[in-house]
Amino acid sequence: MSLPSSLDELIAALRCLPGVGPKSAQRMAYHLLQHDQRGAGRLSLAIESALRSLRRCNRCNNFTEAEVCDRCLSPKRDPSQLCVVEMPTDLNAMEQSHAYSGLYYVLMGRLSPLDGVGPRELAFDRLLARANDGIVKEVILATNLTHEGEATAHYLSEMLHPRGIKVSRIARGLPLGSELEYSDAASVAQALLERRDY
Amino acid sequence: MSLPSSLDELIAALRCLPGVGPKSAQRMAYHLLQHDQRGAGRLSLAIESALRSLRRCNRCNNFTEAEVCDRCLSPKRDPSQLCVVEMPTDLNAMEQSHAYSGLYYVLMGRLSPLDGVGPRELAFDRLLARANDGIVKEVILATNLTHEGEATAHYLSEMLHPRGIKVSRIARGLPLGSELEYSDAASVAQALLERRDY
Repeated sequence: MSLPSSLDELIAALRCLPGVGPKSAQRMAYHLLQHDQRGAGRLSLAIESALRSLRRCNRCNNFTEAEVCDRCLSPKRDPSQLCVVEMPTDLNAMEQSHAYSGLYYVLMGRLSPLDGVGPRELAFDRLLARANDGIVKEVILATNLTHEGEATAHYLSEMLHPRGIKVSRIARGLPLGSELEYSDAASVAQALLERRDY
Repeated sequence: MSLPSSLDELIAALRCLPGVGPKSAQRMAYHLLQHDQRGAGRLSLAIESALRSLRRCNRCNNFTEAEVCDRCLSPKRDPSQLCVVEMPTDLNAMEQSHAYSGLYYVLMGRLSPLDGVGPRELAFDRLLARANDGIVKEVILATNLTHEGEATAHYLSEMLHPRGIKVSRIARGLPLGSELEYSDAASVAQALLERRDY
């Protein structure tokens, strides 16, 4: 005797969430139906609205609801510094360190040849144009200190150096193999302060 | 600099899922937006459709899209046996044991005085009417073997016995303190076969 089709579909659909397997999806579905129908309705609308409203900022590539995001338009940010991070969550970690007031570029990934992610997939040409706009004086590479993050930083420095752009790399103050998203704000600040020429 | 409001709302809304804290919600939101917009759209629709379509079966109290669910209407099920379980996930575990072909009653909870869940909240009167319909010959109590599940079974047996209804309890073949949902099918089958008068 199978489940009602709309329940079956809800359980299947929940599996699009990262780290959610069949048992978790089943638990989540019953939880929503039994204990939090209001929350479920809110979630459905929130997803629909986020998919409709969010796009990539023309300047920093982060998610925004406008053509250019508030941070890129802010007169309080120093436009001569451009910090390159892998993901929006890394940008949030940088902001929480309160050690940086420049602008950002979000790669939305990292070089990963085995997964077919190369310079083209990450749109390095857009980053290059951005770094070459005559206002940016320094590009700070803040990709993760993992193998792939280091390779990405290396590739970017090789690309930017010949164009006469000053390139720096956040210090290895964070433990090797760690990721920005899970580091404490003080370590992130320290790594930023101790950045070295690259 | 805060997040775009629709992204902020998506992260907040994801926290209605059980076991999802602020960091997980953030990861899930970015995962949906970056890597699985199709899955996200499907999830939004699935929630909306489940909330709209699903109701409680008039006979077994489980989720269904009709007035009475397919299982309760099936001529292949033995209507003389009524198995009482706490949750739909427990019913699914029973079914996966392939050791039972009777009907069910899903309490949608367990007695838990500290949480304010008593006989009234679990609608024991509906279960009583169901057990008293003249067709049911045996009520099998398959609430969990936890303290609350045992207390619920005890209360139900005290309620049903005086009405001359035969009541049995699944055997303690499952380790004490365990829950049906996480037990293997063979253990569930064994516990069902070894049920004793209560």
